[in-house]
Amino acid sequence: MGSEKNRDIRLKRRPSGLPAPADFELVESDIPTPGPGQVLVRNLFMSVDPYMRGRMRDRKSYIAPFQIGAVLQGGAVGKVVTSNANADFLAGDYVVSMNGWREWFVSGGEGLQKVEARPDMQVYLGTLGMPGLTAYVGMLNIGGLKEDDRVFVSAASGAVGAIACQIAKNKGCRVVGSAGSDEKCAFLLERLKIDGAINYREHDDLSAALADAMPGVTLYFDNVGGSHLEAALDDMAEFGRIVACGMIEQYNASEGPPAPRNLFQIVAKRLTMRGFIVIDHLDMMERFQRDMKEWIAEGKMTWRETIVDGIERAPEALIGLFSGENFGKMLVKLSDDE
Amino acid sequence: MGSEKNRDIRLKRRPSGLPAPADFELVESDIPTPGPGQVLVRNLFMSVDPYMRGRMRDRKSYIAPFQIGAVLQGGAVGKVVTSNANADFLAGDYVVSMNGWREWFVSGGEGLQKVEARPDMQVYLGTLGMPGLTAYVGMLNIGGLKEDDRVFVSAASGAVGAIACQIAKNKGCRVVGSAGSDEKCAFLLERLKIDGAINYREHDDLSAALADAMPGVTLYFDNVGGSHLEAALDDMAEFGRIVACGMIEQYNASEGPPAPRNLFQIVAKRLTMRGFIVIDHLDMMERFQRDMKEWIAEGKMTWRETIVDGIERAPEALIGLFSGENFGKMLVKLSDDE
Repeated sequence: MGSEKNRDIRLKRRPSGLPAPADFELVESDIPTPGPGQVLVRNLFMSVDPYMRGRMRDRKSYIAPFQIGAVLQGGAVGKVVTSNANADFLAGDYVVSMNGWREWFVSGGEGLQKVEARPDMQVYLGTLGMPGLTAYVGMLNIGGLKEDDRVFVSAASGAVGAIACQIAKNKGCRVVGSAGSDEKCAFLLERLKIDGAINYREHDDLSAALADAMPGVTLYFDNVGGSHLEAALDDMAEFGRIVACGMIEQYNASEGPPAPRNLFQIVAKRLTMRGFIVIDHLDMMERFQRDMKEWIAEGKMTWRETIVDGIERAPEALIGLFSGENFGKMLVKLSDDE
Repeated sequence: MGSEKNRDIRLKRRPSGLPAPADFELVESDIPTPGPGQVLVRNLFMSVDPYMRGRMRDRKSYIAPFQIGAVLQGGAVGKVVTSNANADFLAGDYVVSMNGWREWFVSGGEGLQKVEARPDMQVYLGTLGMPGLTAYVGMLNIGGLKEDDRVFVSAASGAVGAIACQIAKNKGCRVVGSAGSDEKCAFLLERLKIDGAINYREHDDLSAALADAMPGVTLYFDNVGGSHLEAALDDMAEFGRIVACGMIEQYNASEGPPAPRNLFQIVAKRLTMRGFIVIDHLDMMERFQRDMKEWIAEGKMTWRETIVDGIERAPEALIGLFSGENFGKMLVKLSDDE
């Protein structure tokens, strides 16, 4: 450690539209010292997720907004470097926390989850973490996934979407996904083995593309909103269900989006659209991780990661989510696991 | 009857935007003669309803589109004038049918429902008919109305809305409604005895008006869509439910509507929005009519009607629905009950 410093990223100003690097500030400080009962953690990976854009707005929502000048928050996995007589966490333990956007932190242990896997411990920020749980809860609890469902997943190669696709495939459903490049679509077909893939950038008429790929969707897992929700509403079968997980298309909009223009289909087709937030379902975490580990062990679950190096590039990683620069889970590597 | 003629209204061309009188055609013909086993019915009242606008479009939906040159269809109540040996219907019987938009018709009895009440038999086109059943099913089956719900109903003085308000009041809920005039709002407060009324024409910021009248709506019964749905999404409590019954604001739109712009609230507030169509729930009709007759007998249900005279004015009556010219159930009187 020696003369090493701690670095963190703070919100400098609230973005207007797409966040810009100047909305963030990199701040250097001393590495903190753990008091009695505290641990010092060095973060190895942090997560950037689309929902973080919402917390940059100054308005009441399901989670408190980020404050100007304060360190940002988000999922991270790190290693306990020093335990100052904390009974639960020892030096060498790997821990998941919501203390991302900083290289080092001290903690009394609240909100830390010990994880066992040293290799690929960043999986606890993706497939075995919140994004995986989001897909699991969305498909099973909110969507009520059934074997004969005809499933459409938007942003299907993303951290949540790829898991959602595979949960539905493992259940025996037919699945079509959308993504933003031919390479991502190839991954969907070849690696996730879903039944159809739509590169949405290549279709002016997404409704027609979806109707062609899967007429009569019964379950739509929505990560995108806007144009994708509109296409799904056009294509869906009567009595279909929409799992409203995210609407990334509009997170940066200053004005509301022009789509969907066909919301009346909710009435005409007797659809049910249901929103959810994963933090309401943390009681499912244990069951989810048990199932997920089994699927992984059986070779029934695969995923991609995009890893950006260095905390100074974390803002860029977050911004890149909104143009699809990530392929799968977007992570920032904060340090080597020495 | 003598030299009397039958008159009906046909779809002359598909409307673009708001229907115009020239989209309809009045056609005269001989009064038909009932064959063996048939009855001749003279209609007394017919119903005009917002959903009919949807059937004027040439596109697949939950109900077949009207055909150019064919007589329109809709609810009607009439009197059997001649029964040619039909065992179920005798001269003098009152019957509800879907054979509106014509003064006379013959039928073998299929789709006719005998109704007993001679005075105010038009109530079977409103409070005791499809609009009443719509409110009943929407509130109880789709909305899962509970005593502690904080209910918002749009188009609250209309045929469906007024019943929806009173079902919620009878259950003990707090209820706020919106309507398009001060007179209608006075009716909501004084006659329906709901807790708040919003004249939406007097508010630029409907979200603020609703938040003022009832912060934290838990159940929104939506008849309007667009601006009203947007206000509800802004105001609703977490885990609220939206009963998607109708979206009259957009039935005449050629382009889709720009609102609601805040659909992401479905995710953020974990809302459930569920559409329904009353014809899926006709099995509830008997139970509904039993409950409704009891409420009426107990003085717990009131409503308004706007009656337009003469089949030639039926197009005008339908068109008037979209600017709120009706006060309560809009009916066309086709003949006196002689």
